[in-house]
Amino acid sequence: MSDKPTKALAAKALLPTGLRDLLPPDAEHEAQVVGRLLKEFHRHGYERVKPPLVEFEEGLLSGSAATLANQTFRIMDPVSQRMMGVRSDMTPQVARIATTRLRKAPRPLRLSYAGQVLRVKGTGLRQERQFGQVGVELIGPDRAEADAEIILLAASALGSVGAKGISIDLTVPTLVPAVAQALSLTEEDYARLRAALDHRDAKAVADAMGPHAPLFLAILEASGPAPAAVQRLAAIDLPAVARKARAELTDVVRLIEKAAPGLSVTIDPVEMRGFEYQTGVSFTIFARGVRGELGRGGRYRTGGADPVGEPATGFTLYTDTVLRALPGPRPARRVLLPPGTDYAEAQALRAQGWYTVAAMDATDDPVGEARRLGCSHLLTPDGPVPV
Amino acid sequence: MSDKPTKALAAKALLPTGLRDLLPPDAEHEAQVVGRLLKEFHRHGYERVKPPLVEFEEGLLSGSAATLANQTFRIMDPVSQRMMGVRSDMTPQVARIATTRLRKAPRPLRLSYAGQVLRVKGTGLRQERQFGQVGVELIGPDRAEADAEIILLAASALGSVGAKGISIDLTVPTLVPAVAQALSLTEEDYARLRAALDHRDAKAVADAMGPHAPLFLAILEASGPAPAAVQRLAAIDLPAVARKARAELTDVVRLIEKAAPGLSVTIDPVEMRGFEYQTGVSFTIFARGVRGELGRGGRYRTGGADPVGEPATGFTLYTDTVLRALPGPRPARRVLLPPGTDYAEAQALRAQGWYTVAAMDATDDPVGEARRLGCSHLLTPDGPVPV
Repeated sequence: MSDKPTKALAAKALLPTGLRDLLPPDAEHEAQVVGRLLKEFHRHGYERVKPPLVEFEEGLLSGSAATLANQTFRIMDPVSQRMMGVRSDMTPQVARIATTRLRKAPRPLRLSYAGQVLRVKGTGLRQERQFGQVGVELIGPDRAEADAEIILLAASALGSVGAKGISIDLTVPTLVPAVAQALSLTEEDYARLRAALDHRDAKAVADAMGPHAPLFLAILEASGPAPAAVQRLAAIDLPAVARKARAELTDVVRLIEKAAPGLSVTIDPVEMRGFEYQTGVSFTIFARGVRGELGRGGRYRTGGADPVGEPATGFTLYTDTVLRALPGPRPARRVLLPPGTDYAEAQALRAQGWYTVAAMDATDDPVGEARRLGCSHLLTPDGPVPV
Repeated sequence: MSDKPTKALAAKALLPTGLRDLLPPDAEHEAQVVGRLLKEFHRHGYERVKPPLVEFEEGLLSGSAATLANQTFRIMDPVSQRMMGVRSDMTPQVARIATTRLRKAPRPLRLSYAGQVLRVKGTGLRQERQFGQVGVELIGPDRAEADAEIILLAASALGSVGAKGISIDLTVPTLVPAVAQALSLTEEDYARLRAALDHRDAKAVADAMGPHAPLFLAILEASGPAPAAVQRLAAIDLPAVARKARAELTDVVRLIEKAAPGLSVTIDPVEMRGFEYQTGVSFTIFARGVRGELGRGGRYRTGGADPVGEPATGFTLYTDTVLRALPGPRPARRVLLPPGTDYAEAQALRAQGWYTVAAMDATDDPVGEARRLGCSHLLTPDGPVPV
């Protein structure tokens, strides 16, 4: 091999934008982290399902998943002559499994999943067009205990892989619409309100809402660390129809604080973006100092508007962002085995936890050879010695 | 929910032919098995890489991978306006990584991988259009020690997940072509010979080869359990150009027998189907009583005919067939937690290895509830008790 890659090699190495190879040790690290997250889900009774990479597009994009349509690659199935889609989100697949194959499985139904998804285009926040999702769905119960269970699970799973500075940002995307409905806001006024709230723009809220401004400003200000924000939210004289959403949020905060008093929880009761299909308490997961969200989740109905749907809640973690919140992989104990090392001796070392690397050629400089091959140790007649 | 699925539900549940959902406990079992195989590869110094699900089709289907062209789904990349392919085999991707991104990584380069592949159509032997591959590549050394290393690794990895009755069927697909070349067989005669050998049809070999028949019949008969077959092969008066292939096979058998005397190894020196791009010792892995091969591998060059290619060997295991060779998953220790169970108490149980399932509603029949939810135990004031 020459030192410079040929043009042909460079062309061969080129991957489409937003797609990449994970190399050692990152690929192993990612797999370990995903495995440990799933282990924690499993410990909490969540059992794994594995939907296929592609499905018929009607199934893949039905109900609330219709918003994924322009992010989904299509391929023609030569067997059925029908269009299939490559999944761009696993959540609708898991909901499909719950409502079809596991329709008769006992409720509460606790499912977990991990896999790769593919998107047609990257976004400003996420350049990657392929990334890993790992998450859970809790299907059946429509109560604060279920919401709290999955939020606590997200936190404990991220803790189990070593994530530090995790915070959960809670919202109830049904709160503002309920208030707007109670006040019979026009569509136009509601759109102005939404835009103002999306920008957390108090002046625009005041301008748009006139006599209702104090109410919406109070909701906007009931944000921040959970205990104080919940108190502020509790003090607001909400229309009756909006009190249910507030009560749900309050109950969930109380359950989380009781179970995990040290967990950082914030409230942002006007956050609705990305929660268009959520029907109750929803949340985004952040880690201190890490750009982007580690994951998100919330309450929904499995069938969307479909009457056979069930209450459900769940969350998805994005593997790439989660990895940015973790320390890197620890170097392995790799030992170089000189040529001709007895197979049984090597097996014994591996059984003790060593990663063995068999040298193929005899060398005058076994220590240099061990270093060249990324080994921390060299096997000598006295056992492994550091190099 | 009614007892009968609606038509809409049935349609939603329908997946394209050859694609399926893995449900509990199979999805978890598969993931565990794949994880343990990779762990064993890692112990032998093989480090994981993770290529993307899709690549530009030129890269994905270059060199020996061109045979995969009609098994590969194509999608248009709207970013580059170029065609991409969904991978139908991970081996060429790993070879690409070795020759591009890891071009300067020290040799021997030991890589492992696991992932899903998608194929346009199923075959008689494999109806599935999506299946898992898990394997290794050993890049750099061109010698029997490397061939033996990966064959032993395939056997020990399958042993580590509990596979019984594993046998390795060895061949050297370069042997028969070398003999044919030495004898200056016409293309037509060679085609007849190949067809006869593919069918293990001694009479057809005799008919086709005339004076050369005894030589090819001797090669055909040098098959079966390794020690005896190698002896028969050694006794044949091969043309000089074919002796190298025989010597490679003999050396590998000797190294395997020394390291793993109990491993079942058979020889089939005329087997060439599916090894069209192999350049040396190759093998298929079977398990007693299991239909289909668990995996296959062999020696090749990373660049195909490309002069920058390197000697390499490796194998791929097919997850679905491997699972058929294993006992099913063991039932987990699942304990039902009554409503209101203290979070810290539940955490302590999980830390002891319990899988906990939180009951949402109080019930008069907690034992029945535990059974309904697939729990083996119920948490009582005296700790978990079997149900």
